[in-house]
Amino acid sequence: MVQASDPDILSDFILPSNLNGVNGSFFTFTGMRGIFNQTPPTFKVTKASLAEFPALNGQSISLAVLQYPAGGVNPPHTHPRAAELLFVVEGSLEVGFVDTTNKLYTQTLQLGDIFVFPKGLVHYQYNANATEPTTAISAFGSASAGTASLPTTLFATGIEDDILAKSFKTDVATIQKLKAGLAPPKA
Amino acid sequence: MVQASDPDILSDFILPSNLNGVNGSFFTFTGMRGIFNQTPPTFKVTKASLAEFPALNGQSISLAVLQYPAGGVNPPHTHPRAAELLFVVEGSLEVGFVDTTNKLYTQTLQLGDIFVFPKGLVHYQYNANATEPTTAISAFGSASAGTASLPTTLFATGIEDDILAKSFKTDVATIQKLKAGLAPPKA
Amino acid sequence: MVQASDPDILSDFILPSNLNGVNGSFFTFTGMRGIFNQTPPTFKVTKASLAEFPALNGQSISLAVLQYPAGGVNPPHTHPRAAELLFVVEGSLEVGFVDTTNKLYTQTLQLGDIFVFPKGLVHYQYNANATEPTTAISAFGSASAGTASLPTTLFATGIEDDILAKSFKTDVATIQKLKAGLAPPKA
Amino acid sequence: MVQASDPDILSDFILPSNLNGVNGSFFTFTGMRGIFNQTPPTFKVTKASLAEFPALNGQSISLAVLQYPAGGVNPPHTHPRAAELLFVVEGSLEVGFVDTTNKLYTQTLQLGDIFVFPKGLVHYQYNANATEPTTAISAFGSASAGTASLPTTLFATGIEDDILAKSFKTDVATIQKLKAGLAPPKA
Amino acid sequence: MVQASDPDILSDFILPSNLNGVNGSFFTFTGMRGIFNQTPPTFKVTKASLAEFPALNGQSISLAVLQYPAGGVNPPHTHPRAAELLFVVEGSLEVGFVDTTNKLYTQTLQLGDIFVFPKGLVHYQYNANATEPTTAISAFGSASAGTASLPTTLFATGIEDDILAKSFKTDVATIQKLKAGLAPPKA
Amino acid sequence: MVQASDPDILSDFILPSNLNGVNGSFFTFTGMRGIFNQTPPTFKVTKASLAEFPALNGQSISLAVLQYPAGGVNPPHTHPRAAELLFVVEGSLEVGFVDTTNKLYTQTLQLGDIFVFPKGLVHYQYNANATEPTTAISAFGSASAGTASLPTTLFATGIEDDILAKSFKTDVATIQKLKAGLAPPKA
Repeated sequence: MVQASDPDILSDFILPSNLNGVNGSFFTFTGMRGIFNQTPPTFKVTKASLAEFPALNGQSISLAVLQYPAGGVNPPHTHPRAAELLFVVEGSLEVGFVDTTNKLYTQTLQLGDIFVFPKGLVHYQYNANATEPTTAISAFGSASAGTASLPTTLFATGIEDDILAKSFKTDVATIQKLKAGLAPPKA
Repeated sequence: MVQASDPDILSDFILPSNLNGVNGSFFTFTGMRGIFNQTPPTFKVTKASLAEFPALNGQSISLAVLQYPAGGVNPPHTHPRAAELLFVVEGSLEVGFVDTTNKLYTQTLQLGDIFVFPKGLVHYQYNANATEPTTAISAFGSASAGTASLPTTLFATGIEDDILAKSFKTDVATIQKLKAGLAPPKA
Repeated sequence: MVQASDPDILSDFILPSNLNGVNGSFFTFTGMRGIFNQTPPTFKVTKASLAEFPALNGQSISLAVLQYPAGGVNPPHTHPRAAELLFVVEGSLEVGFVDTTNKLYTQTLQLGDIFVFPKGLVHYQYNANATEPTTAISAFGSASAGTASLPTTLFATGIEDDILAKSFKTDVATIQKLKAGLAPPKA
Repeated sequence: MVQASDPDILSDFILPSNLNGVNGSFFTFTGMRGIFNQTPPTFKVTKASLAEFPALNGQSISLAVLQYPAGGVNPPHTHPRAAELLFVVEGSLEVGFVDTTNKLYTQTLQLGDIFVFPKGLVHYQYNANATEPTTAISAFGSASAGTASLPTTLFATGIEDDILAKSFKTDVATIQKLKAGLAPPKA
Repeated sequence: MVQASDPDILSDFILPSNLNGVNGSFFTFTGMRGIFNQTPPTFKVTKASLAEFPALNGQSISLAVLQYPAGGVNPPHTHPRAAELLFVVEGSLEVGFVDTTNKLYTQTLQLGDIFVFPKGLVHYQYNANATEPTTAISAFGSASAGTASLPTTLFATGIEDDILAKSFKTDVATIQKLKAGLAPPKA
Repeated sequence: MVQASDPDILSDFILPSNLNGVNGSFFTFTGMRGIFNQTPPTFKVTKASLAEFPALNGQSISLAVLQYPAGGVNPPHTHPRAAELLFVVEGSLEVGFVDTTNKLYTQTLQLGDIFVFPKGLVHYQYNANATEPTTAISAFGSASAGTASLPTTLFATGIEDDILAKSFKTDVATIQKLKAGLAPPKA
């Protein structure tokens, strides 16, 4: 459990309670080494956030590497605790977000472009290129932005069929079809 | 456009720039009068937030009245800028939210029960009673919590069919069926 | 002792240290059940704040039910940590607050009216109706707004008579009379 | 009207809109010069806060000089937007505050002592010495802490007699006596 | 002048006052296009912060690209308003920061490593490789972190020689030598 | 280690975990008694911050007494977590700070003058008077503002000579001379 808040802390940094002193290694995250050498078969996100990198506690910042194979999609999702600033470092990317007036904003990003997804809003990314992969580096204004991926949040957590059918103004059969497609594969 | 932030302000309250002095009426919102006398035919939310009640600027608080006819549903949605504290003042209510680990929390609320939906998470409410209406009063820890209703955000704002089909691991026909059901009626 | 701050937290919610996992009950407060069935003989406040409802930790929101019999008064008081948004759900109510320039703002609230008491300012409520009770639901923009009721804070905590007499520009006899009236009844 | 919030700003400092460039004088407040050469006949507070010193905007800090003649009192009051840290630089001082559980904390401060009045709580100071003056310098964790002096807030702003009598559990005559003592002198 | 604070805003995003509506381009920054194709002759920082990218207002996040030729150094500096999270995307890098107890933390970063410089502390980076350039992408937990480069702040802004000589416990000649080296070249 | 953040807390005050109840002494700091009776031989700062005075936890405020003998200097430094508001209570003082555009702001302060050093910026003070001491009281908008004194941060913590020489555009001999002058005396 994390009790500290993201705003100003009262010390230079926060050490885990089991550490008395640290050196430069504590402030270093090596979990991304070699990440640019490989292209995953499906969309993949690799995080350097509070859970993976405890030195971020109280510093209001985190990073992630987003890797999209050709045709790969990062489904619509929200980050409850931060805006996201996405930097395309390889390939190109279709992006979009929807504000609270239900207006959709889209953009086609080229290599080197940066896009900001405002805090808490629903957004997605899609590599529309049929042959080339895309890589992006995203920064978040919280050490622990959190992610709620909407397809699984809505259709793979057990919300009742009739509630979903009424919500999406459709029939239970359509809901069950969506649930089946998003269900984790059985062992 | 609102520029002030929700945290601490530097004055007792913030007056709109076109007002020099105010009396008690400025701090009063009368838009809820008579609201408990009627049951709307479908789920209805009536807000007392910054947009309707300017005196809330800088005070980090707002309210809404939620009215559910028998079988009425408030579809899955998020509030980007606040937690919600819901108080059932008539009838009963099925509620649920999903955290960022994809765990669903549900509860059946009786008259008088209060439920907290943590900040930024996807949640919904449903009046499962076949004959009786439900009324709730919700408080938000921001003057302008914002709402992103997910069925319309996802399927009624123009996100491309193939991005949605890939995201929801379904076919384009299912996406188009969902879009048709959620589209606003034509004139 | 509470160490977390009310602003943004780094997790979806904060669990007490003695809990490993929770279900929907943790987010539910049932202490208000049946509260609308009774009218207390004197003004009574029933809270759903951090002390009664631990799930509010880090969510910046709390609620209270305020019940005024005919002629009942909620004496002048302050909430050190939040603004209050009061919603009249039964009867009517005289309300007032004083800003830091010593200006009094008053209003007569009808059923359905909402009034905001800005953060930290002295305020009161009074049911001037001679026969009918009043009920209000108040929301606060902190999980733990705190209350300092001024009659008891000033005259029932042991502040010395001469300090109070000088402060209120009166004689010690008047101070002692006020103290006697506000003292808790002896066993 | 001030719209900026006390937390972090997005620039080194905030200039008033009618200024394009400033030098060191903008960051200097000279309104305290000579203040230590005089002893006012009654308690007097001289502030260096946002209203007097615009350079404090966004810096979350302000100061005041408090001067107490022999027997002088600073009546019970609250600061809605900051804690106060009081430093006795001449004489001695009786101080006290009341927390939200109605517990009184008192202390006799000597020359050189520092006392913290927690944010938003009711507090007072009193120079009990019959012949010597006291001087204190107080710091506040906001550029605009605000002050609500309780004797005048309660009894000199026009709150109705019967509301006050009920609140203080006394008779209207006592309330009227208090009001008369605290009323500003007529011309 | 910027008045909004970095914490929570009351809208999805903040538009400049001269804009009524925007599309996806407003949320896109193209100023980094082609940046990875060139190696500057000396250390160079290219920013995507509030000044260059107005959509960041209120989103508490910004980015910069840092380019170091062989032997290039980013001199000791501080960011007054944010921590920095640095990601090495080409080459290697020596980094260090000093905390407020005067302890130095250093690390040699490899390609793919991430290092956090805590908020407000003095830090530097150095590409010790004699032949290969280094590139890093840095994220900041504020839209406008600000930078105070210490060599120029101390020795190229006009602070008097004798104040600097006393501060650095050296002679005026040494101070004047440092000033000469850091002075901008004459036209 | 301190985990609480400086913004709003959820209680009136925060007690150390080894204390169950406290009285007025907990809120009193006596470490400054007698401080005005002596003039130290070199510049000296005496703090009443979180480390010395635990009652400040969560109150966003601290104080320090600054004593300058004739010719005494407080070398250039930064406070990572607060602005400083300096009040000259004896003598006079040369002050200056540098903003993030590299502009120097200076002022000669007389007895009674107050100067604000904006949050996080490099600043210094100097008593230019050849015979008379100066005393100032400084307030900080954080319980734990922190201090990074730049001469020692830069030249007495072990940063490598060649990194410093490149940063300050000088030779290694000059860096070594500065390091020698700032090194702590050997036993």
